[in-house]
Amino acid sequence: MKSTIPVTSLQRLPVYLNYLKSLSGTREFISSGAIAHALNMGEVLVRKDLAFTSAQGRTRVGYNTCELIAALEEYLGCNEIKNAVIFGAGGLGSALLSYGGFGNYGIRIVSAFDNNPLKKGSEVSGKPVLGVEEAPGFISRNNVKLAVICVPAKVAQEVTDILVGCNVKSILNFAPAQLTVPEGFNVRNIDVAANLAILSSLI
Amino acid sequence: MKSTIPVTSLQRLPVYLNYLKSLSGTREFISSGAIAHALNMGEVLVRKDLAFTSAQGRTRVGYNTCELIAALEEYLGCNEIKNAVIFGAGGLGSALLSYGGFGNYGIRIVSAFDNNPLKKGSEVSGKPVLGVEEAPGFISRNNVKLAVICVPAKVAQEVTDILVGCNVKSILNFAPAQLTVPEGFNVRNIDVAANLAILSSLI
Repeated sequence: MKSTIPVTSLQRLPVYLNYLKSLSGTREFISSGAIAHALNMGEVLVRKDLAFTSAQGRTRVGYNTCELIAALEEYLGCNEIKNAVIFGAGGLGSALLSYGGFGNYGIRIVSAFDNNPLKKGSEVSGKPVLGVEEAPGFISRNNVKLAVICVPAKVAQEVTDILVGCNVKSILNFAPAQLTVPEGFNVRNIDVAANLAILSSLI
Repeated sequence: MKSTIPVTSLQRLPVYLNYLKSLSGTREFISSGAIAHALNMGEVLVRKDLAFTSAQGRTRVGYNTCELIAALEEYLGCNEIKNAVIFGAGGLGSALLSYGGFGNYGIRIVSAFDNNPLKKGSEVSGKPVLGVEEAPGFISRNNVKLAVICVPAKVAQEVTDILVGCNVKSILNFAPAQLTVPEGFNVRNIDVAANLAILSSLI
């Protein structure tokens, strides 16, 4: 089923989830119209997106809020623990190692890899920073299928090739570089500077 | 002119720019087809996107690479210095204060604001961390039109209201919260955990 959801719909599911959680149990039922209004989206779009989950809305009542949260969490796999690793333990990599928000999605950052001798062997928030040569063994032992790339752009493809070799299927890339992966692997790019440039050009 | 470009096209301009810069002057001319192939996009799409800039492609030759880089930089406003501030000097905020990649887009992060007494009055990479009460004066004196929100979700709207009050038109939001701004203000959201959850659900 998951393979048929458009990525644009999938991207909105965490937005609904965050919004519903922010209501903190103040509403027993919520309609797609109310969600659409709060998030400044179209109602039809919201209803179509939510139809990908197992949640059932009822006419004139809407969704049971708790059930809808549970359905979104189930769809997004929030209840299974998935191990993830970070490549690059600089400022951003270290910040992500310490960030507590991944747990809401069942994601556990277990370690970082960095070849800088000042970082290798250290710990950040109780998580080890290991040398890159240790990555294949660690990834295999810990069944890691998710990785975050926080290395400079010029070594991002090299790191990606290591991850592909380790069969890490999904990569979140913060380096301002276009990465090439074989079919069956997923890359999402977050270029913080480019996002700021886009905003700046809109002023 | 800028107001007529679709946001989806605008989002791709930094991708083209990064790619062209990564060629490091090895190609005097480049065709839209070659760019499309390298970035795994459609050629018509690339040509349409680049038509928003002042760059002129020539039949059978393509674009002069240097001219195309200059046109993209001009469009994205990389040559004018724009001051930006960060709210929240935790792990992510501090990492962004130290990040050198914004300069490529003409963006200068000038300070952070944080009410934590341990951070207030300190410096990160030579940039001051000030109390939030100092923000309106600082923003006005330094003609700041761009801000990055790195505070916890529960105070993100409060910070947004301060920024709107200071007429900061464009906001990059890392907090997992849906922000409300008046018309004429721009918000882009980067929810790192949600991005990882989306990748995780694709495995």
